[in-house]
Parts: sequence; structure tokens; C-alpha cells
Amino acid sequence: MPTDLPSGRERPRFSGLPTFMRLPELDRVRAEHQPVEWCIYGVPFDGGTTYHPGARFGPRAVRDASQYVKPCSPELGIDLAQRFSMADAGDSPVAPYSCADNVGLVQDFATGLGDPDLTRLLAIGGDHSVALANLRVAWQRAGRPSSGLPLIHIDAHLDTVDVVWGERYGHGSFLIRAIEEGVVDPKRTLSLGVRGPLNTLKDLDFGREAGITVVGMSRWVEDRASVASIIQEFRARLGDDECYLTLDIDACDPSCAPGTGTPVSGGFSAAELFLALRWLAGIRLAGADVVEVCPSRDPQGITALLAAQAAFQILCIDAAAHPD
Amino acid sequence: MPTDLPSGRERPRFSGLPTFMRLPELDRVRAEHQPVEWCIYGVPFDGGTTYHPGARFGPRAVRDASQYVKPCSPELGIDLAQRFSMADAGDSPVAPYSCADNVGLVQDFATGLGDPDLTRLLAIGGDHSVALANLRVAWQRAGRPSSGLPLIHIDAHLDTVDVVWGERYGHGSFLIRAIEEGVVDPKRTLSLGVRGPLNTLKDLDFGREAGITVVGMSRWVEDRASVASIIQEFRARLGDDECYLTLDIDACDPSCAPGTGTPVSGGFSAAELFLALRWLAGIRLAGADVVEVCPSRDPQGITALLAAQAAFQILCIDAAAHPD
Amino acid sequence: MPTDLPSGRERPRFSGLPTFMRLPELDRVRAEHQPVEWCIYGVPFDGGTTYHPGARFGPRAVRDASQYVKPCSPELGIDLAQRFSMADAGDSPVAPYSCADNVGLVQDFATGLGDPDLTRLLAIGGDHSVALANLRVAWQRAGRPSSGLPLIHIDAHLDTVDVVWGERYGHGSFLIRAIEEGVVDPKRTLSLGVRGPLNTLKDLDFGREAGITVVGMSRWVEDRASVASIIQEFRARLGDDECYLTLDIDACDPSCAPGTGTPVSGGFSAAELFLALRWLAGIRLAGADVVEVCPSRDPQGITALLAAQAAFQILCIDAAAHPD
Amino acid sequence: MPTDLPSGRERPRFSGLPTFMRLPELDRVRAEHQPVEWCIYGVPFDGGTTYHPGARFGPRAVRDASQYVKPCSPELGIDLAQRFSMADAGDSPVAPYSCADNVGLVQDFATGLGDPDLTRLLAIGGDHSVALANLRVAWQRAGRPSSGLPLIHIDAHLDTVDVVWGERYGHGSFLIRAIEEGVVDPKRTLSLGVRGPLNTLKDLDFGREAGITVVGMSRWVEDRASVASIIQEFRARLGDDECYLTLDIDACDPSCAPGTGTPVSGGFSAAELFLALRWLAGIRLAGADVVEVCPSRDPQGITALLAAQAAFQILCIDAAAHPD
Amino acid sequence: MPTDLPSGRERPRFSGLPTFMRLPELDRVRAEHQPVEWCIYGVPFDGGTTYHPGARFGPRAVRDASQYVKPCSPELGIDLAQRFSMADAGDSPVAPYSCADNVGLVQDFATGLGDPDLTRLLAIGGDHSVALANLRVAWQRAGRPSSGLPLIHIDAHLDTVDVVWGERYGHGSFLIRAIEEGVVDPKRTLSLGVRGPLNTLKDLDFGREAGITVVGMSRWVEDRASVASIIQEFRARLGDDECYLTLDIDACDPSCAPGTGTPVSGGFSAAELFLALRWLAGIRLAGADVVEVCPSRDPQGITALLAAQAAFQILCIDAAAHPD
Amino acid sequence: MPTDLPSGRERPRFSGLPTFMRLPELDRVRAEHQPVEWCIYGVPFDGGTTYHPGARFGPRAVRDASQYVKPCSPELGIDLAQRFSMADAGDSPVAPYSCADNVGLVQDFATGLGDPDLTRLLAIGGDHSVALANLRVAWQRAGRPSSGLPLIHIDAHLDTVDVVWGERYGHGSFLIRAIEEGVVDPKRTLSLGVRGPLNTLKDLDFGREAGITVVGMSRWVEDRASVASIIQEFRARLGDDECYLTLDIDACDPSCAPGTGTPVSGGFSAAELFLALRWLAGIRLAGADVVEVCPSRDPQGITALLAAQAAFQILCIDAAAHPD
Repeated sequence: MPTDLPSGRERPRFSGLPTFMRLPELDRVRAEHQPVEWCIYGVPFDGGTTYHPGARFGPRAVRDASQYVKPCSPELGIDLAQRFSMADAGDSPVAPYSCADNVGLVQDFATGLGDPDLTRLLAIGGDHSVALANLRVAWQRAGRPSSGLPLIHIDAHLDTVDVVWGERYGHGSFLIRAIEEGVVDPKRTLSLGVRGPLNTLKDLDFGREAGITVVGMSRWVEDRASVASIIQEFRARLGDDECYLTLDIDACDPSCAPGTGTPVSGGFSAAELFLALRWLAGIRLAGADVVEVCPSRDPQGITALLAAQAAFQILCIDAAAHPD
Repeated sequence: MPTDLPSGRERPRFSGLPTFMRLPELDRVRAEHQPVEWCIYGVPFDGGTTYHPGARFGPRAVRDASQYVKPCSPELGIDLAQRFSMADAGDSPVAPYSCADNVGLVQDFATGLGDPDLTRLLAIGGDHSVALANLRVAWQRAGRPSSGLPLIHIDAHLDTVDVVWGERYGHGSFLIRAIEEGVVDPKRTLSLGVRGPLNTLKDLDFGREAGITVVGMSRWVEDRASVASIIQEFRARLGDDECYLTLDIDACDPSCAPGTGTPVSGGFSAAELFLALRWLAGIRLAGADVVEVCPSRDPQGITALLAAQAAFQILCIDAAAHPD
Repeated sequence: MPTDLPSGRERPRFSGLPTFMRLPELDRVRAEHQPVEWCIYGVPFDGGTTYHPGARFGPRAVRDASQYVKPCSPELGIDLAQRFSMADAGDSPVAPYSCADNVGLVQDFATGLGDPDLTRLLAIGGDHSVALANLRVAWQRAGRPSSGLPLIHIDAHLDTVDVVWGERYGHGSFLIRAIEEGVVDPKRTLSLGVRGPLNTLKDLDFGREAGITVVGMSRWVEDRASVASIIQEFRARLGDDECYLTLDIDACDPSCAPGTGTPVSGGFSAAELFLALRWLAGIRLAGADVVEVCPSRDPQGITALLAAQAAFQILCIDAAAHPD
Repeated sequence: MPTDLPSGRERPRFSGLPTFMRLPELDRVRAEHQPVEWCIYGVPFDGGTTYHPGARFGPRAVRDASQYVKPCSPELGIDLAQRFSMADAGDSPVAPYSCADNVGLVQDFATGLGDPDLTRLLAIGGDHSVALANLRVAWQRAGRPSSGLPLIHIDAHLDTVDVVWGERYGHGSFLIRAIEEGVVDPKRTLSLGVRGPLNTLKDLDFGREAGITVVGMSRWVEDRASVASIIQEFRARLGDDECYLTLDIDACDPSCAPGTGTPVSGGFSAAELFLALRWLAGIRLAGADVVEVCPSRDPQGITALLAAQAAFQILCIDAAAHPD
Repeated sequence: MPTDLPSGRERPRFSGLPTFMRLPELDRVRAEHQPVEWCIYGVPFDGGTTYHPGARFGPRAVRDASQYVKPCSPELGIDLAQRFSMADAGDSPVAPYSCADNVGLVQDFATGLGDPDLTRLLAIGGDHSVALANLRVAWQRAGRPSSGLPLIHIDAHLDTVDVVWGERYGHGSFLIRAIEEGVVDPKRTLSLGVRGPLNTLKDLDFGREAGITVVGMSRWVEDRASVASIIQEFRARLGDDECYLTLDIDACDPSCAPGTGTPVSGGFSAAELFLALRWLAGIRLAGADVVEVCPSRDPQGITALLAAQAAFQILCIDAAAHPD
Repeated sequence: MPTDLPSGRERPRFSGLPTFMRLPELDRVRAEHQPVEWCIYGVPFDGGTTYHPGARFGPRAVRDASQYVKPCSPELGIDLAQRFSMADAGDSPVAPYSCADNVGLVQDFATGLGDPDLTRLLAIGGDHSVALANLRVAWQRAGRPSSGLPLIHIDAHLDTVDVVWGERYGHGSFLIRAIEEGVVDPKRTLSLGVRGPLNTLKDLDFGREAGITVVGMSRWVEDRASVASIIQEFRARLGDDECYLTLDIDACDPSCAPGTGTPVSGGFSAAELFLALRWLAGIRLAGADVVEVCPSRDPQGITALLAAQAAFQILCIDAAAHPD
């Protein structure tokens, strides 16, 4: 089902209220009783941040940058506007002062978006705690599979820290909580981009013991072909099952993603990230998120642009699984 | 007639699609058959710029900054949301490559906004050529007075240059054109903030010969009280007539307005600009604009914030003339 | 009692670990059993912020900027290093995820600093909720006066909002809480710099009803001499009583203080702020704070420099009350 | 023929009026009746831009950055100052408000530079519409070959859009116009760096149907060796013919080229761009340009530096074809 | 004698090699045997800096910014291009690693510029040690008056520090050296803008004992009218004698001059600086300099613009003394 | 021997005085009679810079950035805090105005740090002339080997320029001086990252004739595997001998290291630099330095972060040679 997008060659991309990729607003689409296959929404929340805060302004910045994100992928031969009915639902309510409360609020908001039988949700963060809320909803919509959802996790950090400053909910803990809650299947979780330095050598233990396939950044740099093989194996195990994808923009190097709260040098270049995403094309997605864009540290907007293009590429992954 | 605004203490100001001051969108208001007293719209156009371009991104930046502009003026005792029904009409179509064409396009768009008998228009630029379009519409709505509209013009430049690079339409020519067209009454035009250096000593001749009251920046700095007197005289001559107000943000000093295309050191501070605007409170406005915000030169957003607050103050000028 | 400071003409100001104004660290001073009259400490906390977060990095930025703050005021004839024994106590522990908890933690830390009979405390924020903790300690050290402490409050906002997003503790509520707790005497509270726009016209009601003398920014701009008179009256009422001073850097205009979380155009220039502080010279201080520096929005560091110089000027206020 | 350059070890590179690479000015060289093999000139024009304008300041920024570009390539064993007589002709006249007019003006200016039988022209943009003017002149100087000139086109976009906002001339249309006019031979055109997202899936059709060899960015990332082979084939087909080279700096990733008007994440790193340019060494150039540097988005100047070094590398390509 | 300047309305101000205010280059003027009344030259030197270095890039930045400085002052009724024959001599040779050597080198260079009987010199720094060289030359050209030259010194610092880090030459020592050498007459020296904090309370002693009239910033803020009187007295004492003027841009507040190496909050606004300069109009100048612009701390270029406009205003001071 | 580090999960990384990686200060460690295996110190000096100065602020910026550098390398399986006793010695005295003097001052300071038989020194620059001082001390502590120390030199420049502006000491001459003095063994010197453009084609002659193995950046880009082989050969020749490592951050591309004084496009990405450093793991280090971070050109701090992480990786190289 197509989406009606204004042409940049008639209506300049620097004009108009900035919905994500100039998509129609969800309530306007619903008013016309149109179905929606992908619904994008923002979560302006950074109450789970451990270093530089500011991701609460991430949705606004990613939407602004997305005005220059066009709908067609020549690499995959996909015209997203032809493939999917899409809409922007605006921002979720948030609880700025409590991460645990916020996860619940976002979950409630997202649960009501679109048609549960049809609509997949792409959340734009906010910090990585946002993923826990969106994962819960994706898992519900997928019929609450007892094994949890398969997960592709692209991030500089593994985010399986149990407690920080006495709190169990935060941007470094989304994955441990999601596994504990059963919404993620660690045995079908592939983690890309993790790298040191770490707080302790035990920081990766929980993930490995739970069965996560951790492909660190160093392997990507040293032997990219082996990562392609691992992804192939992951896809084989996945079969036709829907998978959730979460992208923390700090997986990328500070050279292309300076605007993030916990930057770690030595990450993906933008071209490398997009290559990895193309290797995933054709996987059916149950939901997705792009998180941790911190605009106050991104004066040229290159981080937000990268995040917006990555969100586009993520939608293309699913589009490749849904041919016309 | 009041406007329904979300409270920042419930719905954070960093959330939601950024309409100006979080106003409702015009078409939603019209769908509910509500009247609109002030309609704000953007004009993302900078094709009339003579130095740094980039004001095409001005409406987006001013709307973003306006999320932190609250509706009440304690200085004037005005709650704008209680006083006026207001709406954001989004952005005008533009003709990026032709200033003359653009003025026409914007004029057509603005002519159709709201209810001509009720709605006044506040345009957010874009470069100063935008003012010509909005002035034409304000003049039409005012019944095409043969004398032209009275004008308050706050700007570092007088904008009465006849031709630049062979073109008669541009951001330095809006006022000469408006006077020639009869939409502005130069004898009831008050210009604040003009200062050197100028291209030629004759640059102010047209304006003075036409009868504009030019109060240069040096007078403001040297003898502010005398400016207050001049404004009082201007108000006396104005009586109850509606007046148009145009604010070029480069009237302000680059310290508070670095993000503009033709900055001139030695301008108003923000506090001084707001004082001047308060001195105008109670004048009935036929329309207004705030122009020349150039976001690529405004990394901290202080220019856009100043412009957004100034737009709020301008609405308060008119509100003071329309008591509850 | 003097403080030993390295000379910038021997040891460059760009070298060394950056304590505030290159003061000795408190524990080194205590190890030598030296008394301390003013103890400076940082509170890297921004969990009470309602718009741009990031003030958690404020103490580091202010200390960095303070390397170029020299110890002598020619305007007041004071050599601070000769007048006071001073030390930097480092940073307080913080509870990043709970403003209420954080106030308690900071209070506990500050209570133990130096000698309660001698040492006054200057807190470097952090957001304005920090002031509540430092005020409590100043009030305790002052012998818990039942009337509360007199207060000089320099700020763009009155900070008497009862509840934001369901929370009673936050950077907009420090003053209402301090008055409720009895640590501040609203009848001897002078507020400078408040200005619109406000959320509601009632936002100033609590303060006025409680008896705060609110001198808004517009009065400063329009009639500075009258503010001098009000300050004189305030000093007369104060007599020899110790007074607390809290400075929110957003009292200043974004032109000189862009690096803050809730900027409001139209504030003090740096020169005006320093003039106001000189008018206060000779008031005995019970404690003080400088808050709301947000470095991620302050790329040239001018906000941090202003805050550091203002902190120096605040110490000079008290020094003028303690002649050699 | 050598060029006389001041040594940076005697005359610091931060001193002097900034001609490109500190070359002598053309009129001074001509006054001494010296021949000039490469003439560099600027085109401060951005009237064909479709997103962020500002490339009109590109020539100034590239010249500034080029002060630190030294004349020798150890990789190719070339001392450019020994190999070529070079000069900087300053800036072309421009028609800021009309792209079509501007192409003509630049063409007229460039036609008169140096000695048509000897001098090749390197244009520094300005937006990509500049290339059309410089191509026309290169084609004239090459004897107006009926097949058009071979072209190496390094760019994120293919620039074969027919009409944007009703205009046939603009920075996205230079190549379609150049092919239509016959100044470029599409069958001997090699395009490197193109990538999505695109407006429509048909955007590459014109180019492919015309016979352009489009080597997209994804191929470079996935299989760089195959690109080397394609370049070898292109060189074989080229033989000794002169070829024009146009470099749009947005071919590079925003991490190394944030300062451009239509940035697309996922492009070349600087090291990759230079590798590609080294693979072209020894091709005889008929002319060249480096375009789309937008300084207002390049606060650290890394885009301008990259463009300046790339211009140096381009001159080395030709130098490798002209051994001493 | 007039200067031939290109019109910005024909040749855009963003085009061409950036000489100061688009003046002709000195050697071109000399080649045509034209006299030169004012010669501007740059001194890219910062080897005397005590805090943030980088002023070596000042001349380039000020020239860039000066492209938008037009030649006419409406405030004074002066068209500088009609009044004076002016030229840009480019940059002086420098000795980057030795301040004492550099002063000598610059002195030698400046001594040879133009015609000693006619040409006055305006130096663009570079750090304030540059002033010593230019002062020496002005003094020589003035006939080596035994009393030294009268001086107007606008600066946040008095620059009479004897030795820093063991060195007698540096940016904080230019004035003590100039007085010792007899090129400046301290009894006819007026210093504006000095303010604390200072290193020691004795820092102003040398100047006061030598007879300098020090008008601190605090007096300007508190009682501007009294400064006007002091300037009137200074002018009366001066009579028709030529006076040297040196402007350290750090006299201005960091809000309008962030790009400087030793910023001090609380300085002049741009409008105030220009007012002070207008109060000096009509004084005959023996030479002048504008120093301490540090572009790496001035990303929006507002400091360089302010310095360029101030240089224009300084030339107007002298022009007012030389009516047509 | 372990180092006691505060946990970031208890004491936030944005709190506290910023020692390198939150290490204890050396004098506190010495007061407790603890041994120190690695001592880090800063050298705030940039008096040897030939282009953009500002590295004097490098130590402060690297320490600030290092607050987010955690102690464990999962790639090498090393917990640095468990492996080594480490301390931060603060900053060396400097002679800002004389590079030769400064080398001596730093050498004196560093000679006295820790225990000469145990402590290795990591210097944080400052410009590259700092390396000469630290090399001398490392050579002394290594027993003044007559062959000089083996050296790994990672840099965009070879730094064997004999004289610049008449001076023999400077940031481009550290290596020629170190070889002349006999503290470096050129035959066991491996240089990585050198690239053009160069001033003259002879610039690399001294190094090559002296026997340095120069592996230029172009080889890395074209044939990374061959670099691995060269490194293996270097390690074989090295055997168990201690080697010095010097890292000029300009070895990296301006995309990840914009904040440096002499940036050259086309360098290492951060991931590539870290790969090269991992290839060196297990080499015993005699000392090391990380130099040329220039914070005024690094507004997002990504250069300082890269330098801080690289310093961590360098310590890990040695740690891999010292198993628990």
C-alpha cells in the first residue's frame, strides 16, 4: 500500500512542518480510514542517560534531518512510498523524571497506535531505554511468543548492566530487562558493534551466558567477511520469523555520530553501517527503533542525518521482505 | 477568543511536532469552524539575499525555538492564549529561484488564509522580500487604503535600494517597492535601528525624501528618551489606524542575533528590542512579519529564540489594543 | 586569612588540574589544619531540568573557565586571596535519577564541609534544585533562624512552580520549597531579573503573596535608578543579618549566557549583572550558589566564564563586609 | 614550467592574502609574460542549490584552507610547483539570481583566461551548476570534439534531473544539460559515489540509457577491487584523450565533508577519495572543478581542507601525465 | 584623495580575494604612483599570548569579515572612499617564535610602507605586542617627539605588566615598553575599558603613577556621562596633536567578542564601543591598530566583524579631522 | 599492581576533578608509599607549532574526555586497573615562549617522577616537541642505550625538518633532534601514517637515509595486509627490547580528529588506528606520548576522546606484555 509523499522537486524539502520523511500524520491517515503498515513515533526522553543527556531532543532533530531523506533505495530497488503505507504518530507522552514510569507510558501510547494486526512501530529516541517499551509492544503484537522476539542489536555497548546508581531501568539496562521479561530471545540475538573500553571484564558475561551472539567491532574491522557469514547463519536460524531491530547511533564512530551521549571512538563508518543493514535486507521486522541522537552535541546535524537515513534503511530491510 | 494550548507542565515543551508556540494547525481549526484572529505562517525563501543565504530554513528554526515561548506577558498583563484565537498555517509555497515570482506566490497563499475580515497575518521569514508579499495582503485586507498602510520598520538597513545586481526585487528593496506600489505610507513610516556603514551616503535619501521618520541606532544609543518621544508622536499621528510592523532580526546586534545573513555590529540588545516593542503596545496591527533568521549561522539557536520571543511580543502589541 | 594561589605569571593558567580559581583542594588544606572561610563545591546534577539538560557538566566547565579568573577586584579594592581562606571541596555525590534524593545527598555532603562555625559554602551547579540543598545547610549553619534566611535571587524565572510533571522537586520549584520549609524568608527576599513570557499570569502570585520583592527585568531596563533604590531599601531592612545569594545564569541574556537550559531573551548583559552585584557589596553572605551552566550549549565557554567571574564577584560581596 | 611558491618554512602559511595554494595571481603572471598551464579560479555562486545554500562562500573557504596544502605528492613522486606553471585568476563575475545567466557569465570569464592553447582551468565552486560553464570552456579549448569530452564524475548524486521547481538549470541538472549540449560524452563518462536515497527509482534512468558507467557507492564498499577494474577499463577506452574531472565534495561522507548543501551519509572517507584519485593518476585532464563546499556548515574547515587537498590531487593526476 | 572601491551592488561582496574592505593592494597603487593616506597591513603573530593563542589568524579573519564593511558612515556623514586614498599592504613578515624579534621585524616592514610624510598605518593583529611595533613607526613618522605620542587605549587590560614567564615582551607588556621607550606619552594617555579581576591590586600602579588616565569599565557602566566629560578634557589637552589609537577587541564583552585570547566578561557592547569611537571623531590620528582577534574561538565570525567595523570607525575618526 | 579507581556506576563519570582516567594523583599515591608503574603527566605547551596553535590546552581536554574512558579492554582481555599501578602527576612546568627551553624544563620535571627503576611515563601534549623531552627521560631510564631507543611513530608528518623559521626545535623537528641526540634508533624506528602533500620531495630523505621504516598512509589504504607483515618484522627485530611509542593525533583523519593544529585529510579512521595499536599489543614500552590535541578546534571533543582512548590502548599494549 503506497504512501502519499510530496515531491521535493515541487514542494521544497526545507518547507513544511517536519514529520518523519514528510510522511502524513497518523491521525489524518486514520481519519481517512487508511491502513498503516509502519507507524513512526518519537520518544523525547533521556532520563535513563548516564553521561551526556539531551536525547530528549532527538526526535525533533531526526525529523528535521529526515526532510532530506528521499523514499527510494537504488541499492535494493525499493521505492518505500510505493511499498508501504506509513505515517508519523507524533511523540509519545513521557515521564521525564522516571525511567521506569516512562517505559510504561510509552508502552501504553504505542499499544494504541494504528491497527495491532497490521502496523509495525518504529520508535525514534530518546535514550536506549525507549527500546524496552517498543519491544514490549512488538512482542505483544507478535502474539507474545514464549521464546521472546529475535533481536538485532547494533550498539557500542551491550546494555546488559543490571543496576546503575541504584536503578534497574536506564539506557544501559534495556537488554537485560528485555531478556528477563521474556520479550527478547537471547539465543536469537545478534549484537554488532560492541567495543571497549568497558567498566569491568565481566560486563559481557551476562550476554554471553544468555546466548547472545556478540560480534564486536574489532572483528568487523579485522575480518569483515566473517561477520557476513555470522549474519548468514543468523538469518538461517531466523527463517521467516519476525525480528526486532534496535540501532543505537553510538554504534557508529564519533566522526559520523558526534551527537550522542556516550560516544566511543572506533565505531562503524556510515558506509559500513549501511552495508551491514543491506546484509540484513529481507528479514521481516516486528518493530524497530533508532535511539541516542543527542542534538546539542551535533551542531552540523550529521548524527541526526545518519540516524534518519538509517531509519530509512531499516524500513527497507522489511520492505525487501514484502515485495510488491 | 481563546486558543487551546497544551501546558508545558503536562506535555513537555520538547515533545510534539513544532508548530509556532505550539498553536493548533490552521486546517484543524478551520475543520472545527473556529475563527482565527492571528494566523502565523512561514515563508522558507532566501532568494533575495545579498550576502549569507540560509533564511529559507528560518521558519523551521523559529518554530523550533518557539516551543519554549510561553503565552503570557507579565510586563503587559496579557495572556495571549486567552486574548486571541491563533493558528499556524504551515509554510507558503515558494519560488526559490525568483524573488519576484516568490512575492506573488506568497501573496496568493496568504490571501487565502483564514477569514479576510478577521484574520491578521504574521509571516515568519525567510528574507525581507517576504514582507512585500505580506504587506500587500495586509493592505488588501485593510480595504486597500489609498494612502498605504502605516509602517513600523525595525531593521539595520533601510531596504530602499532600487536595484541590486540588476534586480528590482530582493531583500534590500522591499520598502522601496512597497512605497512605489502604494501599500505603505512613507509619511507614517517609522524606521528604527538603521546604522552604518552604508554603500553610499545617498542610501537614505529616498526614504527621507519620501517622508520616512528614520531613527538611527546612534540616536537610540545616545539619547533613548528622545526616541520615546518620537514614538509617542508617531502613535499620536496614527490614532486608531492599523499599522503594519516588520522586524528584521538584524536590527539586533550580532551578539544576540549572529544567525542572520547581513549582520551589522552595533545593534539593539534583546532587552532593548523588547523595550522598544513594549513602547508600541496598544497599537492596532494590520499584520506583521519577523524575517532574516539564518539558522546555519546560529548554532546555539539564540537568534531563533530571540525572533520567536519577538514575534510573541509583537502579538502582544496588538493584544494590548484588544482588551478582553 | 589568606589563600595561597599560584601566580599566573609563573605557572601558566592553562596548566594544572582545574580547581575553582586554582584554589587548594579542601582535604589538602584540612590536612594542614588550616581554617577555611569559603568552601566551593560542585554539584553535577541536572535531574530537575525541564528543557535542555546538561548542567551536570556545569561544575567542570565553570572550574575550567575559572582558571582565567584572577583574585583581585580593582573596582572594590579587594584581593580575595588576601581576604579569605578558601578551598575547593570537589564535587558532591549525586543521585542523578531523583531530584528529591539528590537534594538530600547534597545536603549531607555539604553539611560536613569545613568548620560549621566558620565556613560558608558556595555551590556550583548543576540545575537550580541544587540551591535548595545549599540553602538548607546555610540555614542550619546560621542557627536555624525561625524566620528563614534573607535571600537575593537573580534569575529569569521566579522558581515558585508547585508541581511540574507530577513532581514537587525540580529546578523551577526550589524557591517555593525553600519558603515552605522555612529556610528562606520571603519577606526579605529580593528577586532580580524575572521576565516573561510565562506559562500563566498567576505564576508570580505565590511569590508576591508570600512577600517577595520581585524586580522584573523590564524595570531594570526602563528605570535602573529605581532598582538601585530598591536595593538600598533591601539593605536597610537587612542590617547586619547574613543573606543567601543564588544566581541562575539564565538571568543574563542568551547573548552572554547561551549555555543554559531554559534561556530567555532579554536578560542582563554581563556588565549589568556585575553592576548589580557591586551594588550588593558589603552584604554579609550566609552562602551562595551559581547554577544552570549547561556546557553543551556553550561552545566558546562564554557562559562558564561569566559564571566563574560572577562567582568571584559574589565572594567579593562578602569580602567587602569583612575588611582586613 | 615551474611556479614560484613561497616556502612555508620562511613565510608562514598563516600569512598573506590567500590565493589558492599561495599561487601567484594570474594578472601578475601575465604582466611578466609567463605562460600558465593551470589556472585556478573561483565561482562564488549558489543560485542553483536545492537544499542548504551557502556555496557562494566556497571559493574563499577553499583558498583559506589551501594555505596548508603543500606542493609535493610523495605518493606519486610529483612536485607540482616544479611540474606546472600555475596561477590563481581570482573569482569569476556571477549572476547570483539566475543560474542560467550565471553559467553564461562564468563561461565568458573563463573563456578569456590565460592562453587557450595552453591553459587548463580548475574551477572552485560554488554549486555544481558551475561545472557546466567550465565544461563548455574545456570543450571549446579541446577543439569542440563532436563526441563531447570524456568525464569522470565523483558525486553522491548523478545530477541528471531535468527540471526542479520549474527550472532547467540548477546544481542537480548540470550533467543532463552538458550531455544535451554535446559537451560531455556519456559513453565515456564514469560516475563514482552515487548512492540512495533517491527521489524516484527512475532517477538514474537517463544516465544509464545515455551510456554513463555508474559505479555506485555500495559497490565501492562491497567490492573495491571491482571498481579498480572498471577504472582500468575506462582508462583503456580513454587512451590518450583528455578527460574532464568534476568532484562534488558531497561524494564524501558527512563525517569528512559536513560542509555541503545536500549531504548524504554513507560516502567516501577522505582516504578512500584520495585512493580513487590516485587510481586516475596519469589521465590527461582537459579541465576540472571542485564544487559544493558550503562553509557555513563547516565550522572546523575540514570540508574546505578536504576540497583543497582534493584539488591538489586532481592537479597531480594531470601532472602524472606530464612528466618532467 | 579618493580610493577606487568596487560596488557591492555590482560585484558581490562574497567574491574576490579579500583585501581589507576590498581596498586595492598597496603595490598596485604604488605601481600607478598614487599617494596613499592610510595603509592597512596585517601582523599574523601571537607569540606574545598568555592564554588562548590563535591571533596569528586574526588578519585573515578580519579581512574576510571586512568584505561586508561598506565605506560610508551616515552617523558622521563621511564617505571614507571619497575622503582618503587607502591601500592594503598585505601581511608583515613575522618571527613566530620570538616576540622581541617580531616587534623588530614588523617595525622594519612598516617603516617602509607608503610615503613616510603622508601615509598613516593601521595594523591588524595579531596579539597586542603588535602595537609596540606600529607605535614605534608612528612615532618616527611623527618626527620622534620627545614627549612621546598621545595614546587612546581601549582594552580590558592595562598591559603594563613588566615581565611574564621571564619575558619582557608580550601582549600584556606593550604599554609599559612603549612608555619606557618614550614612544608613548603616559600623561596624554587615555585608557578605556579596563576591568577586573586582576592578578594583583598593584597591577594598575605603574600606569597611574606614570600619569595614564584610566577610565575603568565600571565607570562607563555606572556613569557614562562622566566618561564623555573625561574624553572632552582629553581632547582639549590634545589640541591639534596627532594621537595614536590602539583597540584590543577584548575591551568588548565576550557576548560580542568571544573570539579573543584573554576574554573578560563585563565589557563594552558593540553599540557602546561605537559610541565611544564617535566621541573621538575629529581627533587626528598618527596611526592605529586593532588587535587580539582569535578566529578559532569565533565560529560565527562576530568578533572579526566587530573588529572590521571598528577599524572602519577608527578611520572615520581621522576622516572627521580631514574634511573634504 | 592494581590501581584504585572509582566505579562509574556509583560515582558518575561527570563528577570530580578530572585526572586522567580518574587515576589517583601521584603525590597522593606517593604519600602512601605505593609504587607506580605508569605515570601520566600533561605538558601544556604549543610554542613549537607551525600552523594552528592551541595544543597548550590539550592536557586539560584529554583529561576531561578521559572521564569516559573505562579501564578494561575486552579485545585484549585486559583490566588495566588490575594490571598496573598508575597515577596522574599533573602538568609539567613549561616555558611557553621557547621550545628549546621547554624541552629542558619538561625533561627535568619528568626525570623526577615516580621511581626511575619502575615508572614509565606517558606524556599528554602539547605539541610534538614534547616527545623529545619524554624520549630523553625514557632513554635515561632505559640505561642510556648507545643505539638509542626503538620507536613507533604514528603521525601524518615525519617530523624530521631541520629548521623552521630559523629554529631547530619545534613540533616538526622532534625526530631529527632525537636521532641526532642518539635517544632514538632510526634503524628500529617504524613510522605509520605519513602522507602528502609535503613541502619538498626531499622531506622524507633524512628519515629514509637514517634507516627509518616509513609506512605511508597510502600503503595502509591500498594494502593493509602488507602493513601487518611489516609490523610483524619490526616486532621480530625488536625482540624483548623496550620501545617508545609516540602518537601524533593528526595521524588520524580530520573527520575523527579535527582538533589538531596541522590537519591533513586522508588519515586513519579511529577504528583503523585502534587496529594498528592492537597489532602492537605485547610490545614492552619504555614510554609513550599522545600529542597535538588542539581543543579550540574540537568543539564536540571527539579529538580529545580519540586521544584519550588511544592513550588507554597504548597502556594496553604494554599491559599485554606484562601478564598478571
